[in-house]
Amino acid sequence: MAAPDEWVVIPAEDLLVMTLAPDAQGNPREVVIQLMPEPFSQGWIANIRTLARAQWYDGISVNRVQDNYVVQWGDPGYDNPESGEVEQKPLPEGLRVMGEDDYVYSRTTGASGSIVLHHPDNYLEDSYSDWTWFESGWPIAYEVSEDTRTVSNWPVHCYGMVGVGRDYSPDTGTGAELYTVIGHAPRHLDRNIALVGRIISGMEDLSSLPRGSGALGFYTEEEADKRTPILSIRVAADLPQGERPEYEYLSTDGETFAKYAEARANRRDPFFIQPAGGADICNIPVPIRESEGD
Amino acid sequence: MAAPDEWVVIPAEDLLVMTLAPDAQGNPREVVIQLMPEPFSQGWIANIRTLARAQWYDGISVNRVQDNYVVQWGDPGYDNPESGEVEQKPLPEGLRVMGEDDYVYSRTTGASGSIVLHHPDNYLEDSYSDWTWFESGWPIAYEVSEDTRTVSNWPVHCYGMVGVGRDYSPDTGTGAELYTVIGHAPRHLDRNIALVGRIISGMEDLSSLPRGSGALGFYTEEEADKRTPILSIRVAADLPQGERPEYEYLSTDGETFAKYAEARANRRDPFFIQPAGGADICNIPVPIRESEGD
Repeated sequence: MAAPDEWVVIPAEDLLVMTLAPDAQGNPREVVIQLMPEPFSQGWIANIRTLARAQWYDGISVNRVQDNYVVQWGDPGYDNPESGEVEQKPLPEGLRVMGEDDYVYSRTTGASGSIVLHHPDNYLEDSYSDWTWFESGWPIAYEVSEDTRTVSNWPVHCYGMVGVGRDYSPDTGTGAELYTVIGHAPRHLDRNIALVGRIISGMEDLSSLPRGSGALGFYTEEEADKRTPILSIRVAADLPQGERPEYEYLSTDGETFAKYAEARANRRDPFFIQPAGGADICNIPVPIRESEGD
Repeated sequence: MAAPDEWVVIPAEDLLVMTLAPDAQGNPREVVIQLMPEPFSQGWIANIRTLARAQWYDGISVNRVQDNYVVQWGDPGYDNPESGEVEQKPLPEGLRVMGEDDYVYSRTTGASGSIVLHHPDNYLEDSYSDWTWFESGWPIAYEVSEDTRTVSNWPVHCYGMVGVGRDYSPDTGTGAELYTVIGHAPRHLDRNIALVGRIISGMEDLSSLPRGSGALGFYTEEEADKRTPILSIRVAADLPQGERPEYEYLSTDGETFAKYAEARANRRDPFFIQPAGGADICNIPVPIRESEGD
């Protein structure tokens, strides 16, 4: 059992409530997204709050479901090879334009600086970076340059992570077009697209949607009725107190998390006969739970 | 372009055609499974052919859909915490009983033997083994003991791989209960369960099924109507010539595959600004296509 103070409450400003149209049986569908904290992707995240507060997302839809890859939602006319020449929904004022450098957060120090250039005690081997571990509850990859005394780090494309759709470089996307990962971690997208958050509730309402038969999994015009309408996306902080979802995550700096990560690498429950002896970061989902309330 | 002789025809004896009940709109749903070749899991695979030929699979159902994990099909009464005490469908005679050693294939040699104890020129770093690469078109993990001069290898739980459900050790399963991976590669299952094949067509008919709300993603009694009936599973070799599906895979020993794997690690299409510089084995799906026919 983790001590109560190892659980960290997620600020209401970092939670988005996305309400999909009810399913075919009339059941409500609500998805909760947690946005990332500093220092990652803050420009895009500011845009997402702006878009939510302008109610720009209300009435968009899920337009793309590509098996073992992503579910993507936004303006049906955006970057959709199946929509042809259609008018796009005008974006609100005040959106920031982010650069490709902003996909990665880098720290550099002089020769006498205290920056950590080697992995910490807890770390995970990785095929895509020098090492991976968790920061403030998020899966992060690290790369070090001894020459420039720079540590670069960036969030990792695990199952359920949410990113910002974009057009070809140098476009970096605004936040109007979002996707989540529904298959094996597509790590080649790391440092190529901004990650902004993750799905913490309702994932199955996205991952089980019918796959699109068009290019890249977009729904074709003939199957436009498969597009799931998104009724609204709201910042939880803007909801009346009684309607705000409240979630907390297990601190990734504590002893309980370190034990949990070790147990994920070496399963001891009776089903397992051969412990793996290792794990990749996307096989160690950070525990998240609803707060019990007051 | 790969030379024609780099494509390898899959024997009809290694293909299973699984016919699901039509979907809610009446569309047919057919899934094709490729079984693994020697030396892996051949006892279970023999059982699966026996079960298919006894038509034992006809009338079973998909009973478990756990998000980011597996879809499982078989006897609704088997190992299903939601079914309570129900009678199980009797199995045919002649099924082999496999051991836990059979999850892994090992080769040992004397000091003067020619066995390769080090990784080949092409290999992939791995968090779960000494290295990974492909054999006869399949993703394989390797581990070496210098002391005993033994190389152990085993197939890897990537998205779409098919395995044999089992009860607690020492049970190893018969092949009557099968599952496929619908999320991030659950590599901790490697060497703990027999892998027998992979889905090569129709994956989306399984991965988009509604998730079960019971323990481990089993459908509860209240949602028993979500179980997808399986009308039949047939060995392709037993079908009339005109109805046999014909598939081929890109040889994983050839130059074309090596280039493909390298390109997966270092994407050069214009969308990417930062090549990953590496890839894990489950991000390099072996290319498989329908044969063009005569």
